[in-house]
Amino acid sequence: MNLKVVLKTTGKIILLESALLILPLVISIYYNENTQIYFIKSILISLGIGLFLSLIPGKGNKIYAKEGFLIVSLSWVIISVLGALPFYLSGEIPRFIDALFETVSGFTTTGSTVLKDVEALSYGMLFWRSFTHWIGGIGILVFLLAFLPRSKGQNIYLMRAEVPGPVMVKFVSKVNMNARILCFIYIALSLFQVGFLLLGKMPLFDSVVITFGTAGTGGFSITNASIAAYNNKYFEYVIGFFMIIFGINFNLFYLIYLGSIKEALKSEELKCYLGIITFFVIIITLNILPSYMDIGRAFRDAFFQVSSIITTTGFISSDYSLWPNLSKILLVILMLIGACAGSTGGGIKVYRILVLFKAALKNTKQIFSPRSVYSIKVDNEYIDRKIVDSIQAYFFIYLMILIFSVIILSFDSLNLISIFTSVVTCLSNVGPGLGVVGPVGNFSSLSDLSKLTLIFDMLAGRLELFPIIFLLGFFRLKK
Amino acid sequence: MNLKVVLKTTGKIILLESALLILPLVISIYYNENTQIYFIKSILISLGIGLFLSLIPGKGNKIYAKEGFLIVSLSWVIISVLGALPFYLSGEIPRFIDALFETVSGFTTTGSTVLKDVEALSYGMLFWRSFTHWIGGIGILVFLLAFLPRSKGQNIYLMRAEVPGPVMVKFVSKVNMNARILCFIYIALSLFQVGFLLLGKMPLFDSVVITFGTAGTGGFSITNASIAAYNNKYFEYVIGFFMIIFGINFNLFYLIYLGSIKEALKSEELKCYLGIITFFVIIITLNILPSYMDIGRAFRDAFFQVSSIITTTGFISSDYSLWPNLSKILLVILMLIGACAGSTGGGIKVYRILVLFKAALKNTKQIFSPRSVYSIKVDNEYIDRKIVDSIQAYFFIYLMILIFSVIILSFDSLNLISIFTSVVTCLSNVGPGLGVVGPVGNFSSLSDLSKLTLIFDMLAGRLELFPIIFLLGFFRLKK
Repeated sequence: MNLKVVLKTTGKIILLESALLILPLVISIYYNENTQIYFIKSILISLGIGLFLSLIPGKGNKIYAKEGFLIVSLSWVIISVLGALPFYLSGEIPRFIDALFETVSGFTTTGSTVLKDVEALSYGMLFWRSFTHWIGGIGILVFLLAFLPRSKGQNIYLMRAEVPGPVMVKFVSKVNMNARILCFIYIALSLFQVGFLLLGKMPLFDSVVITFGTAGTGGFSITNASIAAYNNKYFEYVIGFFMIIFGINFNLFYLIYLGSIKEALKSEELKCYLGIITFFVIIITLNILPSYMDIGRAFRDAFFQVSSIITTTGFISSDYSLWPNLSKILLVILMLIGACAGSTGGGIKVYRILVLFKAALKNTKQIFSPRSVYSIKVDNEYIDRKIVDSIQAYFFIYLMILIFSVIILSFDSLNLISIFTSVVTCLSNVGPGLGVVGPVGNFSSLSDLSKLTLIFDMLAGRLELFPIIFLLGFFRLKK
Repeated sequence: MNLKVVLKTTGKIILLESALLILPLVISIYYNENTQIYFIKSILISLGIGLFLSLIPGKGNKIYAKEGFLIVSLSWVIISVLGALPFYLSGEIPRFIDALFETVSGFTTTGSTVLKDVEALSYGMLFWRSFTHWIGGIGILVFLLAFLPRSKGQNIYLMRAEVPGPVMVKFVSKVNMNARILCFIYIALSLFQVGFLLLGKMPLFDSVVITFGTAGTGGFSITNASIAAYNNKYFEYVIGFFMIIFGINFNLFYLIYLGSIKEALKSEELKCYLGIITFFVIIITLNILPSYMDIGRAFRDAFFQVSSIITTTGFISSDYSLWPNLSKILLVILMLIGACAGSTGGGIKVYRILVLFKAALKNTKQIFSPRSVYSIKVDNEYIDRKIVDSIQAYFFIYLMILIFSVIILSFDSLNLISIFTSVVTCLSNVGPGLGVVGPVGNFSSLSDLSKLTLIFDMLAGRLELFPIIFLLGFFRLKK
C-alpha cells in the first residue's frame, strides 16, 4: 500500500472541493446574503487541508486496486465533513451531525433530509445543498480525472472504485478521456433539462437546483412539498422524463452520440429497466385509480413516483404513503432494484438483478439436468465468472448491511415500517421512505446513532459497498 | 422422463398415508368419538387411489433427478389433499381450503393455523393434525424408503429431492439403510422427549402430540395459548431443549451413535447454530428485562422463543408481539435463518448462511487482491463449486418467492407487518408471525388467494424450493 499517493490524491480532491465551494459563494453574493463569510471560511479550511495533503513530499504515484479503494472511501468521508461546514458554521443546520447527514445525503445523491423546514434556508445554502447532488452524481473523482492533464494507466483503479456499476463504463482506452466524455454527457443532459424547465417558466434558480437534484438522482428540493409544491403537469412530466434519462447507463448515450442508436436500444438492461417502469406504472395507476377517480391524474402520479423511486431520485409529486398496500410495497421493491449500472442512480441496479436472475435460472437448470452445462450471457456476451461472483457477493453484503442497520435502528423509538424503509431508502440512495420518514416526513426525529448508521449506509450504497468495506477492514488487512 | 415410475411410486406413498391414517382412527375409537367414520372414509379413498396408481402396469423403474423431483412434489401435493379429508368430511374444519391449509401447514411442519379455537377439535383430529408434523418432519418418503425391501441405487434421487439440506445426509452407502438409520434416530429422540414430558406429569396424550410438534419442528399445539397454557417451567425447558436437538443435523447424532462425539462437536454449522442461539437469547433477555423486571422469567421466555423460532417450530410460551422492536426484529431474522441442514427444521438453514458468508468474504477479498485465489472450506473440506452455486441460487429464489408472495398478499386487507411476516413464517415453516398472524392470532381472516399463496410457500419452503419449481415448470421443460 502506497499511503503517500493516497494522501496526495485525496488532497487534490479536497482542493477541487474548495474550488467548487466558490459557486455557492457567488450565489450568496448575488442574493446579498450574510452567509458569504461561512462559505469563505469553508473554502479556506478546505484549501489549507487540501494544500497540506497534496504537497506531501514523496515519489511514486502507482495506484492499484487497494490504493484506489482507499482514496475513494477516504476522500468521500473527508469531502462530506468539509462540505458540511457551511451549514454548520452558519448555524442554518445547528447540530454538526445533522449538517453531516444532510451533506452525505447530498453527495451520495440520496436526498433524505433532516430539515423540517427546507424553505428557511438561504439561497446560498440551498444551492450548495443541491449542488452536492450534482457533484456526487457523477463523482468528484470523475471531475478530477477529467481535469487532470496527464493520463496514467493506474487511474483505471480510481475510476473503477468510484464509478457505479459492476461493469466499467469504458468508452475509450484512456481513463481521462473517459472521464471527460462522461462529464460532457452529464453537463449536456443537465443543460437540456434546465432549458426545458425554463421553457415551462420555472424560475432560473429553481430550474438549476431541481436539475442538480434530477441529474444526480438526488432528490433534494427547495420547497417542503418537493415537486408537488409547483402542482404543474408540465414540470412533472419533464422532471419524470429526465429522471428516467439519468437512470440509464451512460455508455448508451455515448453509443447514441457515436450514431449507434440501434446498438444502444439492444441493451438488455435498458429493456428491463424500461419494462419494469412501464409495468409498475400500469399496476400502480390501476391500484390507485379507485381512490383518485381520475385516470389522468392517477397515471401522472404513478409515472412520476415510479420514475422518481426506481431512479433513486426521491422527488415527490404526491403523498404515496396514502396509497394502497400494493402500491407501497411495489415502491419499496423499486427502491431495492434501483437504476441502471453506469448511471447516477443507486440501488442494487437492474444489471445486477438481471445477472442474479440468470444465474439462479442457470443453477436451477443444472440441478434438474446435472450433466448439462450452462453459462450466463448478457447482450449476447458471456459474463466472466468473477463478475457473477462479485455480483452475488454484492447482493449478499447489501442485504447483510440492510439487516444489521435495521437492528441498530430498532433501538430508536420508531415503528417497524419506518425503521425498515429508512434503511432501504438510505442504502439505495433514494431519499424518502414510509411512516415517519415518508413523503411528508423527514429524518429529524431519529437518534444520533440512527443518523450515523444511515450516514454509513448512504456512503456504502453510493460507493457500491466495497470501498467502504475496504475502509472498515483497512487496518485489519494484510498490506 | 419415466412417468409410469413416477405414478407408481406416488401410489405407494399414498398407500402408506392410508396406513398412517389408521392411528388417528384408533385414537378416535379409544376416545369413543363420532369421527371414526370420517377417518375410515379417508382411509378407503386413499387406499383406492393408492392401489390404482401403484398397480399401473409397465416396466422399468429407473428414477433419476427429474423423476425424483416430480415424485416428491406430486406426492406432497396429493398427500396434503388426502390428508385434509378427515378435517373436511367431519366438518371440524368446514371449508376445504382451510382444511388444506391446516394439513399443508401440518405436513410441511409449519404450524400456522386457521383455527380460532383449536380446543374445539376432537381428540382424533388433534392427533392427526399433530401426527402430520411428525410424518412431515422426516418426510413420508423417508418412511417409505425405510420400509421398502429392495435397495435400488436410484433411490438416491428420491432421498436427495426430499431430505432437507444442500448437502446430503449420508451415513452409509445404501439409501434404504440411510432412511432406516434416520427413522431410528427420529423415533428414539421422540421417545426420549415423551419420557421427559411424562416425568413432569404431562398427560400422555399431550406428551405425544407435543412431541410430534417438537420432533417435526412443526408447532401445532392442542391449546389456544400453545405451550403458555401449561405455564410450567419444566415443560418449557424440556420442549425448548428438544426443539434445539431436532434443529441439529441428524448426521451428528449418527456420529455420536458411532462414538465420534468429538468429531460431531467440531461441526462448524453446529457451532454457528449454538452460537446464534446463545447470542440471541442474551440480547433478547437484556432487551425484554426492563419490562419483565424478573431475570429468570425473561431468560426463560427468551430461551423458549429463540429455540422455537430458529428451529422453525413456532410453539409459544409468551406473547412476543408485546416485546420491544429489537426483539421482534431479531425473531424475524431467526425465522429467515432457520435450523441446521439435515434437521427437520426449515428456513434458509445455518449451513447455507455460513456458505453465503464465506462466499461473500472470498469474493470481496478477490476484489481487493485480484491476483489471489481463494476457495471455500467448511469443516476443513473444500466445497464443490456447484454446491456454492446452488446455494446462491437457493438464496435468490427464496427472496424472490418471498417478494412475489408479499405482492400477492398485499391485495388482502392486512397491515404491512402482518403481510410480510405471514410470508416469512410460512416460507420458513415457522408458524406464527407478527400482527394479525402473531402469537395470539391466526390465519383465519386471510383471503383464499392469500391462503393459496401461503400453501404454495409452505410447500416450497419444506421441499427446499427446487421440487416445487420443477413441478411448476414441468410442462414447459424439455423432457
